[in-house]
Amino acid sequence: MVKAGIIGATGYAGAELVRILLGHKEVEIKWYGSRSYIDEAYSKVYQNMFQLVEDTCLDDNIGELAKQVDVIFTATPQGFLAGVLTEEILQQVKVVDLSADYRLKDVGVYEKWYGITHKSPQFLEEAVYGLCEINREQVKKARLVANPGCYTTCSILTAWPLIKEGLIDPATLIVDAKSGTSGAGRGAKLPNLFCEVNENIKAYGVTTHRHTPEIEEQLGYAAGEPVTINFTPHLVPMNRGILATEYASLKKIRQEDGSFALPTGGQVMAAYEKYYKDEYFIRLLGEGACPETKWVEGSNFVDIGFQIDPRTGRIILMGAIDNLVKGAAGQAVQNMNLMFGFPEQEGLQLVPMFP
Amino acid sequence: MVKAGIIGATGYAGAELVRILLGHKEVEIKWYGSRSYIDEAYSKVYQNMFQLVEDTCLDDNIGELAKQVDVIFTATPQGFLAGVLTEEILQQVKVVDLSADYRLKDVGVYEKWYGITHKSPQFLEEAVYGLCEINREQVKKARLVANPGCYTTCSILTAWPLIKEGLIDPATLIVDAKSGTSGAGRGAKLPNLFCEVNENIKAYGVTTHRHTPEIEEQLGYAAGEPVTINFTPHLVPMNRGILATEYASLKKIRQEDGSFALPTGGQVMAAYEKYYKDEYFIRLLGEGACPETKWVEGSNFVDIGFQIDPRTGRIILMGAIDNLVKGAAGQAVQNMNLMFGFPEQEGLQLVPMFP
Amino acid sequence: MVKAGIIGATGYAGAELVRILLGHKEVEIKWYGSRSYIDEAYSKVYQNMFQLVEDTCLDDNIGELAKQVDVIFTATPQGFLAGVLTEEILQQVKVVDLSADYRLKDVGVYEKWYGITHKSPQFLEEAVYGLCEINREQVKKARLVANPGCYTTCSILTAWPLIKEGLIDPATLIVDAKSGTSGAGRGAKLPNLFCEVNENIKAYGVTTHRHTPEIEEQLGYAAGEPVTINFTPHLVPMNRGILATEYASLKKIRQEDGSFALPTGGQVMAAYEKYYKDEYFIRLLGEGACPETKWVEGSNFVDIGFQIDPRTGRIILMGAIDNLVKGAAGQAVQNMNLMFGFPEQEGLQLVPMFP
Amino acid sequence: MVKAGIIGATGYAGAELVRILLGHKEVEIKWYGSRSYIDEAYSKVYQNMFQLVEDTCLDDNIGELAKQVDVIFTATPQGFLAGVLTEEILQQVKVVDLSADYRLKDVGVYEKWYGITHKSPQFLEEAVYGLCEINREQVKKARLVANPGCYTTCSILTAWPLIKEGLIDPATLIVDAKSGTSGAGRGAKLPNLFCEVNENIKAYGVTTHRHTPEIEEQLGYAAGEPVTINFTPHLVPMNRGILATEYASLKKIRQEDGSFALPTGGQVMAAYEKYYKDEYFIRLLGEGACPETKWVEGSNFVDIGFQIDPRTGRIILMGAIDNLVKGAAGQAVQNMNLMFGFPEQEGLQLVPMFP
Repeated sequence: MVKAGIIGATGYAGAELVRILLGHKEVEIKWYGSRSYIDEAYSKVYQNMFQLVEDTCLDDNIGELAKQVDVIFTATPQGFLAGVLTEEILQQVKVVDLSADYRLKDVGVYEKWYGITHKSPQFLEEAVYGLCEINREQVKKARLVANPGCYTTCSILTAWPLIKEGLIDPATLIVDAKSGTSGAGRGAKLPNLFCEVNENIKAYGVTTHRHTPEIEEQLGYAAGEPVTINFTPHLVPMNRGILATEYASLKKIRQEDGSFALPTGGQVMAAYEKYYKDEYFIRLLGEGACPETKWVEGSNFVDIGFQIDPRTGRIILMGAIDNLVKGAAGQAVQNMNLMFGFPEQEGLQLVPMFP
Repeated sequence: MVKAGIIGATGYAGAELVRILLGHKEVEIKWYGSRSYIDEAYSKVYQNMFQLVEDTCLDDNIGELAKQVDVIFTATPQGFLAGVLTEEILQQVKVVDLSADYRLKDVGVYEKWYGITHKSPQFLEEAVYGLCEINREQVKKARLVANPGCYTTCSILTAWPLIKEGLIDPATLIVDAKSGTSGAGRGAKLPNLFCEVNENIKAYGVTTHRHTPEIEEQLGYAAGEPVTINFTPHLVPMNRGILATEYASLKKIRQEDGSFALPTGGQVMAAYEKYYKDEYFIRLLGEGACPETKWVEGSNFVDIGFQIDPRTGRIILMGAIDNLVKGAAGQAVQNMNLMFGFPEQEGLQLVPMFP
Repeated sequence: MVKAGIIGATGYAGAELVRILLGHKEVEIKWYGSRSYIDEAYSKVYQNMFQLVEDTCLDDNIGELAKQVDVIFTATPQGFLAGVLTEEILQQVKVVDLSADYRLKDVGVYEKWYGITHKSPQFLEEAVYGLCEINREQVKKARLVANPGCYTTCSILTAWPLIKEGLIDPATLIVDAKSGTSGAGRGAKLPNLFCEVNENIKAYGVTTHRHTPEIEEQLGYAAGEPVTINFTPHLVPMNRGILATEYASLKKIRQEDGSFALPTGGQVMAAYEKYYKDEYFIRLLGEGACPETKWVEGSNFVDIGFQIDPRTGRIILMGAIDNLVKGAAGQAVQNMNLMFGFPEQEGLQLVPMFP
Repeated sequence: MVKAGIIGATGYAGAELVRILLGHKEVEIKWYGSRSYIDEAYSKVYQNMFQLVEDTCLDDNIGELAKQVDVIFTATPQGFLAGVLTEEILQQVKVVDLSADYRLKDVGVYEKWYGITHKSPQFLEEAVYGLCEINREQVKKARLVANPGCYTTCSILTAWPLIKEGLIDPATLIVDAKSGTSGAGRGAKLPNLFCEVNENIKAYGVTTHRHTPEIEEQLGYAAGEPVTINFTPHLVPMNRGILATEYASLKKIRQEDGSFALPTGGQVMAAYEKYYKDEYFIRLLGEGACPETKWVEGSNFVDIGFQIDPRTGRIILMGAIDNLVKGAAGQAVQNMNLMFGFPEQEGLQLVPMFP
């Protein structure tokens, strides 16, 4: 059995890691790190875990933890891991970081969008961006994986094949995203109170949300050139789920008869299938389908649908994930599976729960 | 006292008309029309009205109704009013139609998007599109007002001044809208069941929603040329509220020094104020503000904010309304006030309810 | 115009006072007291009030406030008013206290259940318990009114006539109550986060909730002897509303033929009507009716229904209110209306909002 | 592999059976019966099952089905199974009936509460009431198991040990229960629309709910004498979960010193442990704990807590389940596991999902 430690085990993403790893055949959790609840029974903090987890919360001493486990998950605020990670640690354990510390290759971009100094930029080059469906081979060899953000996972995977294949113009891409409230974390903040969120919807972080440069960097790799987009997140009165509605202008492509024309639905579908046909966790619902977040709740699936508008020459892409699973803990486990050579679906064959 | 009749009084929009008119000093409801509940006490259908409404539901005989009242509100399915309206009726009463029958001037567009034959196109020219803030003077003289749709009211008012003033390029306009579930009506349909909507979000009617041509027609008047847009509605797990998030490329405008540059936040705000400064029901929250549907719940307000993105040259506009008030019954009463010469705010000084 | 000051204007109950008083013809708010937001615009704290309230929050200097206004509402934590109230203040202004400080006549009971020392027990005798339908005449003459708690208002009014008339045995009374989350206040506490409350229901404060002795004291007056009950509150994933489901054994009463038998539905209804027939804010739905909190949302109504179970000899009483209106701010305004000789319904003819 | 057929596979309980059985190592589903969706792809009806279930819905021909599978689950309306069950079928397959048809031993009680004639009372005696923790040994040998109702499972298990041990007086038992909306089924009915349920709570079926005699019968076995109770269900704006809050007077019991006194918390806990100590699916949270439905969501657990009130001599018991799992499909699978000799937890080690 692989031994795992979690730093930040009492946030929502950390708790979801616990839920998933309890069903993983090859892993046992040895360290429930939580600065806020040291020495408290984990099942007192998350009473759904009563009689399932007997452990007590420990502090976040990563040096000590590295000696005791084979893999560390950090579900911590931005800057934490960058401040404590060392080469020594990486020689002892594999690390899957659910924070943003190693997602952006350009330290300047990181420091500008996050407003903090990066304490260990020397690991940026080595860190692998853990979007498994795109970077699978690099993840397998990685010591340090930067687990993608929730919005970014959904936004990137929904658009990737169409940008890679040149079917849409990246300069026209607009991502209008909607998230459940667990994405805001378990901090006791007024805007996240039930009465403030319930019966309400709003945009936030308009033009400034930190997932923007992450989406841009990854889609830039697909495009082969820098991409600048608009990304607008919204807070939805539900616990889980992200829906990304994406708009882009289609590009004329060479057709069989040599002429240039906008791609058909079949050609769009073919582009998706080229990259995702064998991807278990990506479900291509097809043209005309509108994914619903409830269809993926509790699972590691990404559901994708699209609709072409011949009137405007645009395509509307729609992707849905569970922000805590494929958008956080599930993808982290998927990355761990790749890093340790386990079957990629181990622990992740979670059937979506409806209703 | 003006006497009012409502046809379709037991739908959500009809019931909201009742709620608002009960607080209107100049009007009394004399006819609660409801094909489904004939002879049943209205307060049995809407038990919130217990002891407030003593009347029984009547059928939808508009000819008889026209003889008894001064104004008729039709909160009925598409095609109903077009099928029964006559010149004789219009000579007897004023009509505010909450359906789409007289919203589109081009009968061909109506028949294409709604899939039904228009039975009385002869009234299309006369009908006034009842977006009070834009068409106030025509409404005052109207016999027949086409009350705008919920999505359209929010979408149009949020963009109108910027298109009118040439600050944005209409061809780039994308409206991503989110609505509470009351917009789907009170019909007993599976997709509107609590368990299907709760903890879920989805897009629907992508590229085909019937409010699209209505937005295009009205914004076309502002632009002085035909406008074609993308409009995507989403269903949100809440009862009330519409949020429209709109994206458009800014157009360079002549600056004081003679050069051309993208408009500043101040210039955008000035455009809004030019048209809305004295509009009681439009609240300009300003640059950087993100309206929330909860801030307008139960009221006739439209809250508008915006954010410029210098990175992409786009502006993101955000508008919020209560879909049943400014998006339906409230605006219908506002239209009636104008038609009868009542103070425009009469019955509509509804303070938003929070939480 | 009567001038009003609110201390604690930025809690949910305080904000509801603002909402209601904005529609009151005889009152204007001169002081928005809020220790947490001094010098901030009130409409920044509650953005639903944008352009409706221009004032800035002030501190909670009750001495200064007493000189400037005619009535003070205190929507403050337990112990605040008791710590600052003086005879001098009461000689200058009328006070409606929404906290529990003067609700219980027995200072020992207060100190035991609330766990704090009462700083001004000398006003306990004078204070009038502001349950308007029961204590109307005393309220009219009061300087200091203790506005009843939310659970208590609903629980007491639902049972009062049956206890007063001896139809039920008070010793068997069990109140199982369910409340929306606004009852927990606007404090940023983990248990009130959206994700903790949504899709969840729980009991809390079982056998220890502070509204218990308040219900017991008032029902004791009706019974003419001390009453001890079980009261169990539950937290429901909704913003507003309280439903009290009450169980009690019926007592045999003398029938017309001289025999003793359990009361009929008609006799129960007659008891309710004896006390509530002319009460505008109490709506007797009748035997077999199950009130729903949505039917009273936003209004000052109390809806009451009941069902007799001949199998067990018990009666089940059900009462529903909006916890922020009849359970707090609405009743406070109703009390103020009585104290100042205004029509009792002034500002309170709020039609319930559905959906 | 055991072959299973489901009749009523497209209701919420049927769909939950599918979700659970997809993770069961010993079972494969061969028949998705659904009268409403014959020949439609199951994953079109429940799109969460896209790419997980390839089958098409079949009709509900139980005779044909019995020849093809080893076990049949009927998640059908009352009266269906009673109308079609035969000895021949029972000789071919085991049957787990999720309807009420064989739950009540007394056909007269069934016919009175359900208002229909029982078509096959000859199987009533044979049918085993499938409350696994109570009737485990009989279930193991059963051909026909009557799977308990959702409310009843929760209500009975929460009270059983205390009645069995004589710690509470059954005549005083009152069950106030709260359920998520999935308990109302997937039928397209107005009262179950999102806008009718959201932001609302109500009691329903007061004194007449059909789960009442089922609770009474089972608790009567524990008491050794007939039990008559009050049971009041409430509809809560959430998808899943049942919370039962139960009230009963404690009975004095002989203490170690020979005197008689009310039981202590320790004595109550001992009674629970006597029956449930080794029950994996029952989690005893202990004295003072208030279970929350979210702690068991998606799992087969029953969480139980209690509180003694020395002031009234009553005890308040609280039990929480997921109505679709332990209250329906999970318990059905648990019964099947017992009937086929599989490990009782197979397929049911579902970690509760939070949030």
